[in-house]
Amino acid sequence: MTRHLAVVGTTGAVGREICALISERKVPAERISLWASQRSAGQRLAVGGCNSPVGQLCEKSFEGVDYAIFSAGSERSRQFAPLAVRAGATVIDNSSAFRMDPGVPLVIPEINPKDAHTHQGIIANPNCSTIIMNMAVWPLHKVNPVKRIVVSTYQAASGAGAAAMEELRTQTADHLAGRKITPKVFPHPIAFNLFSHDSPVGQTGYNTEEQKMIDETRKIFHEPDLAISTTCIRVPIMRAHSASINLTFEHPILPEQVHDLLKQAPGVEVVDDPASGGFPMPLDATGRDECLVGRIRQDAGQPGGRGIELFVCGDQLRKGAALNAIQILELLTQ
Amino acid sequence: MTRHLAVVGTTGAVGREICALISERKVPAERISLWASQRSAGQRLAVGGCNSPVGQLCEKSFEGVDYAIFSAGSERSRQFAPLAVRAGATVIDNSSAFRMDPGVPLVIPEINPKDAHTHQGIIANPNCSTIIMNMAVWPLHKVNPVKRIVVSTYQAASGAGAAAMEELRTQTADHLAGRKITPKVFPHPIAFNLFSHDSPVGQTGYNTEEQKMIDETRKIFHEPDLAISTTCIRVPIMRAHSASINLTFEHPILPEQVHDLLKQAPGVEVVDDPASGGFPMPLDATGRDECLVGRIRQDAGQPGGRGIELFVCGDQLRKGAALNAIQILELLTQ
Repeated sequence: MTRHLAVVGTTGAVGREICALISERKVPAERISLWASQRSAGQRLAVGGCNSPVGQLCEKSFEGVDYAIFSAGSERSRQFAPLAVRAGATVIDNSSAFRMDPGVPLVIPEINPKDAHTHQGIIANPNCSTIIMNMAVWPLHKVNPVKRIVVSTYQAASGAGAAAMEELRTQTADHLAGRKITPKVFPHPIAFNLFSHDSPVGQTGYNTEEQKMIDETRKIFHEPDLAISTTCIRVPIMRAHSASINLTFEHPILPEQVHDLLKQAPGVEVVDDPASGGFPMPLDATGRDECLVGRIRQDAGQPGGRGIELFVCGDQLRKGAALNAIQILELLTQ
Repeated sequence: MTRHLAVVGTTGAVGREICALISERKVPAERISLWASQRSAGQRLAVGGCNSPVGQLCEKSFEGVDYAIFSAGSERSRQFAPLAVRAGATVIDNSSAFRMDPGVPLVIPEINPKDAHTHQGIIANPNCSTIIMNMAVWPLHKVNPVKRIVVSTYQAASGAGAAAMEELRTQTADHLAGRKITPKVFPHPIAFNLFSHDSPVGQTGYNTEEQKMIDETRKIFHEPDLAISTTCIRVPIMRAHSASINLTFEHPILPEQVHDLLKQAPGVEVVDDPASGGFPMPLDATGRDECLVGRIRQDAGQPGGRGIELFVCGDQLRKGAALNAIQILELLTQ
């Protein structure tokens, strides 16, 4: 039982999903306090059976708080998470602020639950694409080590927040009506278009999102040298991310083995019946807790039966963010 | 000079683009005859400065024809292309009917123009994704042999024809208006969704589109053993295909070399300035003859500097189909 749970950034796309999951999963808490920026404070949100007021986040928001889930961006996490820890709270942080900090565990509960218990006040929730990819990769890796991953993503608007989802809607309507398009949230048109993920490109030529998938996977897997090649692309999809994944294993592996391993994996649903059109699709993954995995096949391009190709879809707001954070909370409190 | 050029399937998405290109590129022909199925015959289309009637395709359509460009699907090509050849015409066929026939050259004019001249009446135009990918890969391969390709596509609705493009439009409008969606052309919803390419999945686990990219690339490159791993995905984009490509070379190669090679490559435009948001996007590739290539970077996942990642976009109806066919015609007649 949590005595006092705080949700920071509660009016955003992920924050709202966290509130919905608290109610849905009956997360036990004596008190739930909701915090947002000045702009959103004063609203009321349904959570845990109550219609709770949203307070303005400030230095005193964490008095008496046991657990705080942050989904308000890196800047606010950097500013307020240490204050929450100092006030005695354990922070589960959805931002990228602390993910690569060696003193902060980075946790996907189905993969490295034990890491959660090594925390020193902050536990980081991984990047959404990292989580969704690895829900499919880890169950295989722990049986037959993955030596190389080549992944290309198909990322939904929700990863850029509620305003981005609204931009996809309104801009698409404007495009269909022949009205002029003026991108605001995204730097490029998103209606009937796609573009390289809108995060800065570094010296290596990889953008931040791609680098996160590489660095975070290595940290979560405890495999600092795992070879990973990432391409992150934003597509005009509302809220489920997809990824096309090419794997090289240490030992030969058959598609049937992959099927069996993934069928037993928690949080994964195998959707792989090409004859009847059964494969993972964002619309089917939307609102689902499970990541859908399909198109499992022996890689035609790798000798020795050591290659597998597969495709995964997962709800970016649920398993990609809010659900994983709530699962970390459950891991700590149950 | 072509005395008599016939266009078969002239009212489809590719057929209309062929007519537009004949006018735009001033393809010299004394006579241009347009052919379509019974359903579309009787229309008139602007081509080569005339408003020409569309006749109903029949066994006698090819009397006196020198060159015939077919874009009416595999079944019609199988039935009518041999008749056209028998009547003395050279056929440029956009369908997949003859592509893997050892007696039929499969030609991308920038890559294997000489193959065109070995024809025995039929020259095949490659699959759209095959063309667009290889416009970026070939200029590198001919200097530093590519040993392995891992590619994931982002394919536009136009690849499934004009009706599919219209379905994307109307279904998206219906979705936004909250109306019920009933997929007709595609087997799955395409509005705000994506799915594994809608071609049959074979014994190997690869669908026909993926297998085409493998088989056709090997044939065009004259590299029967080239290792290629393909994942073909349909996305809610109107008419430009994209591909995320991971390459392994025989020798080390630098991103700067790739830049230089692609800048000199005909039919390619390097769009690769991440700092200013410069990378290939379908909306920018639409209506363009060039394939846009960007996100060129050393592959973080391959040792020894032998890996490169890049992203390409090309207009599916132009270079992916109609333009390549017209270029083959120009190759034969100029």
